[in-house]
Amino acid sequence: MARRGYREIADEIRSLIDSGTLPPGSKVPGENEIMAQYGVAQPTARRALDALKNAGLVVARRGSGTYVREFRPVRRVSPDRLKTAVWGADRSIWSVTDNRRLAVSDVRVSEEAAPPHVAHILDLAADDQVVARRRLYVVEDHAIQLATSYYPATLVKGSAIAETDTGSGGAYARLKELGQEPVHFREELRTRMPNTEEAKTLHLVQGTPVIEIIRTAYTADNVPVELNEMILDSGSYMLEYKFSAHPN
Amino acid sequence: MARRGYREIADEIRSLIDSGTLPPGSKVPGENEIMAQYGVAQPTARRALDALKNAGLVVARRGSGTYVREFRPVRRVSPDRLKTAVWGADRSIWSVTDNRRLAVSDVRVSEEAAPPHVAHILDLAADDQVVARRRLYVVEDHAIQLATSYYPATLVKGSAIAETDTGSGGAYARLKELGQEPVHFREELRTRMPNTEEAKTLHLVQGTPVIEIIRTAYTADNVPVELNEMILDSGSYMLEYKFSAHPN
Repeated sequence: MARRGYREIADEIRSLIDSGTLPPGSKVPGENEIMAQYGVAQPTARRALDALKNAGLVVARRGSGTYVREFRPVRRVSPDRLKTAVWGADRSIWSVTDNRRLAVSDVRVSEEAAPPHVAHILDLAADDQVVARRRLYVVEDHAIQLATSYYPATLVKGSAIAETDTGSGGAYARLKELGQEPVHFREELRTRMPNTEEAKTLHLVQGTPVIEIIRTAYTADNVPVELNEMILDSGSYMLEYKFSAHPN
Repeated sequence: MARRGYREIADEIRSLIDSGTLPPGSKVPGENEIMAQYGVAQPTARRALDALKNAGLVVARRGSGTYVREFRPVRRVSPDRLKTAVWGADRSIWSVTDNRRLAVSDVRVSEEAAPPHVAHILDLAADDQVVARRRLYVVEDHAIQLATSYYPATLVKGSAIAETDTGSGGAYARLKELGQEPVHFREELRTRMPNTEEAKTLHLVQGTPVIEIIRTAYTADNVPVELNEMILDSGSYMLEYKFSAHPN
């Protein structure tokens, strides 16, 4: 058998994963096994495993070995009112563990000058102030989402939205009390690899992209009252959107 | 100056990109410049550049050098009827080049046994037949989306949906003629790194995730009549979803 390069070895292991021969959660050959099995040196074996990690196919557990990645996402449904499906029982190809509860942690509230892109979307002047609410969403003690909501300071100053605890019903209930109820929503999504801080905060393993969601909330008069920037761990989320072809 | 490892070098270049000192489209130091500037050997310089490529921050152009990645997405709006915004002029933080037209290419139609997950979602028996329509979406001669639509064969057999050309109005117009007009839609999204074939077909550069969208179309009677599996080049797409808090 001719000696193989790390790419060929990685492709062989990948095909075992794709075919289900190595199912999610199962252990993949370690450096030593690859060295013995393919007759290659350690650097080659290591590069093969690195390639699989960069592809997001396997995850190394310290002192335990390397395993085929599992996808156990939290389901995020929009619009929320459709969570109780309007069109019968839904079927999903991804097993979703909805019993896991999302919790908010580390809420930090501050008043600051609107960042340029926030001023742009909230239609504010460059030097206008915003109230920023930064928090983490945690499931099973594991941070899976970073979120920062921005509100025009002139609108929410003095309300509970400027406090750590927004009170019963949260920020949207407070906005409604202020006569600024959000009724239309717009979400812009993109996907990319994480930056260093995102990877650290969300404990992202190699080969894990993030989903960036910019959510703008509008009143009935089409006034933007909130911009929420979310960074989601793509390994922890499945997003669902439901809509109809015709206004009902 | 102490010699630095490839991670530190990559982090330094990354910070120049994050800060805008190296703006999108600008050239980043090559192997030789990194070797000279940081006093490191070629393997270290190469690993530093690899780390930036895996992070999706830079793109190598053969014979030209390595450049800071640009994000020039196509905007995909759901539901389409909201393309003409119901709530005034929208503002986006991502520059979207909407003038670029999407074209469909390489349409392949076949009748086959429903794959298990397709049978599951379309509520078919395991051995039921489906009509599958596989095609590529191309912009500026560059493939940015793979899509495969499945229809119950008993439903669409003999219609233009089983032909390469579905005719004016496309598959949904034909479904309407068959008394099966899709009116409710459900999209499930996840994000992951591409498999080998996806990376090849979409010409994905290192560090480019894909967005996987499973779209199910339902009739007014909540009968699923189409499942569309889409694989999007995340470097070419920005997704937009609009919805209201209350049924209107």
